[in-house]
Amino acid sequence: MTGGERSRRAPGQVKEVTSLSNPLVKDIKALSLKKYRDREHAFMAEGLKLVLDALDAGWIIRTLVYAKAGRGNATVEKAAARTVAAGGLVLEVSEKVLSSITRRENPQMVVGVFEQRYLPLKEIRPSDQDVWVALDRVRDPGNLGTVIRTVDAVGAKGVILVGECTDPFSIETVRATMGSLFSVSITRAEREAFLTWRGGLPGLMVGTHLKGSVDYRNVDYSKGPILLLMGNEQQGLPETLAEACDRLVRIPQAGRADSLNLAVATGVMLYEIRRAALPASHGAA
Amino acid sequence: MTGGERSRRAPGQVKEVTSLSNPLVKDIKALSLKKYRDREHAFMAEGLKLVLDALDAGWIIRTLVYAKAGRGNATVEKAAARTVAAGGLVLEVSEKVLSSITRRENPQMVVGVFEQRYLPLKEIRPSDQDVWVALDRVRDPGNLGTVIRTVDAVGAKGVILVGECTDPFSIETVRATMGSLFSVSITRAEREAFLTWRGGLPGLMVGTHLKGSVDYRNVDYSKGPILLLMGNEQQGLPETLAEACDRLVRIPQAGRADSLNLAVATGVMLYEIRRAALPASHGAA
Repeated sequence: MTGGERSRRAPGQVKEVTSLSNPLVKDIKALSLKKYRDREHAFMAEGLKLVLDALDAGWIIRTLVYAKAGRGNATVEKAAARTVAAGGLVLEVSEKVLSSITRRENPQMVVGVFEQRYLPLKEIRPSDQDVWVALDRVRDPGNLGTVIRTVDAVGAKGVILVGECTDPFSIETVRATMGSLFSVSITRAEREAFLTWRGGLPGLMVGTHLKGSVDYRNVDYSKGPILLLMGNEQQGLPETLAEACDRLVRIPQAGRADSLNLAVATGVMLYEIRRAALPASHGAA
Repeated sequence: MTGGERSRRAPGQVKEVTSLSNPLVKDIKALSLKKYRDREHAFMAEGLKLVLDALDAGWIIRTLVYAKAGRGNATVEKAAARTVAAGGLVLEVSEKVLSSITRRENPQMVVGVFEQRYLPLKEIRPSDQDVWVALDRVRDPGNLGTVIRTVDAVGAKGVILVGECTDPFSIETVRATMGSLFSVSITRAEREAFLTWRGGLPGLMVGTHLKGSVDYRNVDYSKGPILLLMGNEQQGLPETLAEACDRLVRIPQAGRADSLNLAVATGVMLYEIRRAALPASHGAA
């Protein structure tokens, strides 16, 4: 469908699809592969809550897909109207088609196809209180999604993906973010470009390292901005990145040497970095 | 194979298997289903490192499976000898068989079948400095495995699975523990039995709750033992469990209300609880 055809559709117009071989359905299904997501600069978000989160955060919707059961549901219809108003397409599909799109037996009632959004590295200009997380070659979609979720939870600004990382727009990652993907910035950069950019950055770059010389609780994180750099699941930080850090910190571990999951380690670090900033809104015990 | 046959095997004896339909292979493959794990009280651990961790920690091995490529590898052969010495069976299999057992295209070279081990609730008698984690109806295998890994990292004692939980001996959970499964205790209990047991427990039961009245940093965790109770991924703590807590704490969140992954929240809590106990072995920045 061309832009011209798209713009001629009246608001509220809905296309019904029941065939698995419908080309529109095939295009959406293809988004489960990174190759097609990259080509289309698009991705899927499952579930009404996530679709509404994305629309509220100003993400551009291309297609809203909902199951027949959603017809008459006021929230679904509102989402459909917003989609059409934004120039997007609305598909009402059979349960079978929706299952096939999401590869789930009991799919969510709604799936949205959105445009990917990356913040260019050079547009990041952190101010004093800002916290960013840089992940070096993160591999696990669940870890990446969980880190994005935690970044949102602590009020940090975003995630910089350094080097070859798992796709933040894969369906597994988007699921694991629980909607936080739409609230934080995602940037990607090759290692060299990242290091060059970091050279001009005020504040502290803090890396975690098994051989870190400083306990993670003994750094003054108040002199921000803070850029937290985490190594990947298998290897930790490579030399070139470790050397570029202002502080290499260690999270003490009582058990075996390297027993923290990446997302957990990032969570522990972020809550320490934001310790003073996150209000203790409740009293003492 | 009966115990009698098993005990007649000479140390170092190895059975070669190349057929996918071999009954020994079928029995091991069946362990990917909870029904068979429950019936056999057994589970699979993948990878030489995990198998050695388990053997070192005194877990009982029933079968060691290794790929032909492992023949001549000193560490594999030592593991095989330990297996036979422990009365277990050793299978040398084709890559194809190993792929089929682990359902992976590039399987680890070694898989061990071990006996499950649960510590009965009534045998837990925490002393002052002990920390235990209780998980209410945890559903995600990755979350459970990651929590077990973090429990090990902070030197806590173990995990109590309350109510219907995901299986700690599923292949996904075992993978996510990265070997920590063999270093901590796992207990399971129905909610009522847990509450009765908890009634006789010294120390503090601390639950996390979105409506917790106390900031998680404002509790004196030095008066142990500490039992940390975490609600499940979807619903948080139910009333009956929340009411049984000595403290209901809240982890402050700057973003949306409920944006922490269960394993991350547990990690942040455990590092806070163990803050004084985990040595800051390194100096200040």
